[in-house]
Amino acid sequence: MTQMTMDTTTTMDKAEHKAPEPMNGVDTPALFATINAVGGQPELARFQFRAQSRWVDGTHSRSTMSGFFGAGGEHVHAAVFKADADHPAVLCGADNGPTPVEFVLHALAACLTAGIANIAAARGVRLRSVESSVEGDIDLRGILGLSDEVRNGFQAIRIRFAVEGDASPQKLREIVEQSRKRSAVFDILTNGVPVEVMVDA
Amino acid sequence: MTQMTMDTTTTMDKAEHKAPEPMNGVDTPALFATINAVGGQPELARFQFRAQSRWVDGTHSRSTMSGFFGAGGEHVHAAVFKADADHPAVLCGADNGPTPVEFVLHALAACLTAGIANIAAARGVRLRSVESSVEGDIDLRGILGLSDEVRNGFQAIRIRFAVEGDASPQKLREIVEQSRKRSAVFDILTNGVPVEVMVDA
Repeated sequence: MTQMTMDTTTTMDKAEHKAPEPMNGVDTPALFATINAVGGQPELARFQFRAQSRWVDGTHSRSTMSGFFGAGGEHVHAAVFKADADHPAVLCGADNGPTPVEFVLHALAACLTAGIANIAAARGVRLRSVESSVEGDIDLRGILGLSDEVRNGFQAIRIRFAVEGDASPQKLREIVEQSRKRSAVFDILTNGVPVEVMVDA
Repeated sequence: MTQMTMDTTTTMDKAEHKAPEPMNGVDTPALFATINAVGGQPELARFQFRAQSRWVDGTHSRSTMSGFFGAGGEHVHAAVFKADADHPAVLCGADNGPTPVEFVLHALAACLTAGIANIAAARGVRLRSVESSVEGDIDLRGILGLSDEVRNGFQAIRIRFAVEGDASPQKLREIVEQSRKRSAVFDILTNGVPVEVMVDA
């Protein structure tokens, strides 16, 4: 999930606001209709996303993602999505999937990319390609319990986009910047979220 | 990635530290050897994880996760892992994969679960099952650009574990708590990370 569109008051001219044509695989009229519906009925904006996870063996686990709440009701995805995670061999895992922290990087890239496609469509910019490379630096002395001075998580994340489309480099950069400004995952990662951990045992 | 073990000075007795037997699919001797190696050569703890992402169509993108740096050199996973992400139909996507924010929830569950398995093994606790359910609340008025008062990301995340194993409920709860204390993803989500976004356009 990332930005569904730009801030309508500052980034669209009236023509775009009135009748943006579908573009980049984005059903722009439907997107604008959704935004208008939520604008008139803010309770539709309350969503809850979920995952269920099950330990498989060692550091290997599998999550399923299927149902979520939003727009006033329960929904199910088109399929029950599954994702495996594990630690790599060098960290004594069996390497049955990406590490949990790589999924964090994937989430960031996916959120910003979806926003770029939506915003470009809303601004009438046809995209040819969007690619990104994301990296996160981590010092494992934190999670290994070897230092209380070293944090457990990433110390820094960098993402670099290469965007090609029918607009000036300046306009393409503005689209990426607008996606960043309204990205759910960028906000989660940079500003943090309260996380409650509960145990039935 | 999550905690590879507990804080050795506070949570293991000497017997555990000396010769923990493999358990829960965790090669505990190899894990302790890794920790000892990193303790003696802290530069081995520097890791960099990466993902490459490519826009497919609409809000659909695909990441690949293959190479990473750590323990003094470059590594590749056992396979080139791929993950698709998309927005659901109710948010005008084609639902070709989980949403980016669901991957954040998956990452949290996977990180804590891997830590639980490692710590339980190090403490000599045989696990039978670890299941978790994680949910995140989000108000889409943020990403839809309908309110500047509403944040873009999750407002709260809750994860509930059900753990069964050959130990008292109290001991099982302590294992989950120790995993939380040394989890990379828990730290990333609760404390935030600086994220740099760059664009070649």
